[in-house]
Amino acid sequence: MNMLVDGEWRIDAYESTNEEGEFDRQETSFRDRIRADSDAEFPAESGRYHLYISRACPWAHRAAMTRRLKGLEDAISLSVVEPVRIDDGWEFSEEYPDPLYDEPYLRDIYTRADPEFTGRVTVPVLWDKEEETVVNNESREIMRMLDTQFEEYATRDVDLWPEGYHDEVDTALDAIYEPINNGVYRAGFAETQEAYDRAVSDLFDALDRWETVLNEQRYLVGDALTEADVAMFATLVRFDHVYHTHFKCNRRPIHEYPNLWNYAKELYQLPGVAETVNFDHIVRHYYESHADLNPKRLVPVGPDIDFDAPHDRDRLEANLPSDLTGDAARADD
Amino acid sequence: MNMLVDGEWRIDAYESTNEEGEFDRQETSFRDRIRADSDAEFPAESGRYHLYISRACPWAHRAAMTRRLKGLEDAISLSVVEPVRIDDGWEFSEEYPDPLYDEPYLRDIYTRADPEFTGRVTVPVLWDKEEETVVNNESREIMRMLDTQFEEYATRDVDLWPEGYHDEVDTALDAIYEPINNGVYRAGFAETQEAYDRAVSDLFDALDRWETVLNEQRYLVGDALTEADVAMFATLVRFDHVYHTHFKCNRRPIHEYPNLWNYAKELYQLPGVAETVNFDHIVRHYYESHADLNPKRLVPVGPDIDFDAPHDRDRLEANLPSDLTGDAARADD
Repeated sequence: MNMLVDGEWRIDAYESTNEEGEFDRQETSFRDRIRADSDAEFPAESGRYHLYISRACPWAHRAAMTRRLKGLEDAISLSVVEPVRIDDGWEFSEEYPDPLYDEPYLRDIYTRADPEFTGRVTVPVLWDKEEETVVNNESREIMRMLDTQFEEYATRDVDLWPEGYHDEVDTALDAIYEPINNGVYRAGFAETQEAYDRAVSDLFDALDRWETVLNEQRYLVGDALTEADVAMFATLVRFDHVYHTHFKCNRRPIHEYPNLWNYAKELYQLPGVAETVNFDHIVRHYYESHADLNPKRLVPVGPDIDFDAPHDRDRLEANLPSDLTGDAARADD
Repeated sequence: MNMLVDGEWRIDAYESTNEEGEFDRQETSFRDRIRADSDAEFPAESGRYHLYISRACPWAHRAAMTRRLKGLEDAISLSVVEPVRIDDGWEFSEEYPDPLYDEPYLRDIYTRADPEFTGRVTVPVLWDKEEETVVNNESREIMRMLDTQFEEYATRDVDLWPEGYHDEVDTALDAIYEPINNGVYRAGFAETQEAYDRAVSDLFDALDRWETVLNEQRYLVGDALTEADVAMFATLVRFDHVYHTHFKCNRRPIHEYPNLWNYAKELYQLPGVAETVNFDHIVRHYYESHADLNPKRLVPVGPDIDFDAPHDRDRLEANLPSDLTGDAARADD
């Protein structure tokens, strides 16, 4: 990721660490909200908003997966950036162009929104084509907006923040963020052995706890699929191919946790989810972009695991919307 | 490893690659033989020879493990170098001194043998304290000498090149060298994606084949433990902690191959073998010495696997000497 520092775009500002050598993720910059209210500054409308994502990035994956699970493909357009970041941050290319302005770099989208912009150039970006600005670039907030404000345009009856579970979902999102979603980055970008050791310890303590939880219940907050599962999946699906080796999270791969592995396979096999996963982009992005971790930029062979293999989650009760199960889902896909 | 090139000791000569970006292991330099013959140039004697090893190095491990399995601790002295190589190759230290000459570096031992020496400074080194020279620094030849020429001094009745198996043992040693023992290095030190891909493909093809063989027989050449098993073990015991992550051999860890994993555990649990394994030296050596692969020199947590856990190899017939099984072995350890 790059960042404008003292008038220069710096590629290394993404992997910033504090005095203890710990990875210190910077705050995102654009935090406006789309609302299902025609009088709002950013009202939910079909055709007005665009998502810039990378198929490599777990944060962008939250937005793309929520869009797909809800059936918002027609309402919200989406484009993908080049998976590998070399010198100048996320970029567009012939294969992955900017469909709106034909800009060369994603940073150019940020400076269109704010010519004085100096923060981190990250995905996902939720872009307003009418006002020509970034509404929001915080993945958790984008996920929530797509999940709750576009009901009128959603072609699937899927609610990832269901009534009666609001607190539980938010608590689970909080609980997994620091040790797991961000924890793999804390391990990978640690500059000291102590910072790495702390990150890895927190990560696997948390994975061990969720492994136990998922022995008794189908999803993170119970029998309903929620935004917390989307956030968890985005990390788990990248874990064995990337985080285990590249970020040295090698105490145990996910496929050696029976419940987490079956849970990850079930989510992968939900209608529409697999098409939001691009393992080629995932592995190439991490291994080829981080020369400070992988100087030769060689891409490892990766484990021979199969996300399409049968899972055992049907042993636990699920309260899934019909659009994600049975005939409706099959007809949809 | 370092090497004298144009009058300067170069640390990077160890990881030399050819024009295709493939790791190209250089030949070892000292190839004399100790013989069980008092008229030989280097006759087998007790107290005359010394082994310089690193606990990190799989090649040195062959010599140390053979010495221990044979019970040659009193006949052949042994010392260990510092596990981490920073700038000047294998070195001695306060904790791991040179017991013979108190030299600072292992290269000084080589130049004692040959002031004009310009080759690779590697372990193991089989040193003749009487002639003050290196007899041999080729691990396979040292293993064979210790195995076959010191019968008079061996305190255990263990023959790792047993009569009737000579060809099979040599064939197995040849078969595992390039794809497995050296294969992990070919993967780790590859400079191009193509060279890496070839190495990893060869490596896992070979592991898959031996996994099948070990389903039907106890050891690599049948029911007898041999030098081929010593050579295989030295690679397998390092695999999941180091080669899987550091050298990107991450298609599958050894502990996910049922037969290879149980085989490795059985060998680890043979009397005396565990004390030749030092996981601390192993992981610190690789992760802290190779800044070109691991610039931050952070040491990963590693898998939580247990080489002392029960194995299932008793299901297959073994023809082990009594000194490696039953009461004699237990009394010995």
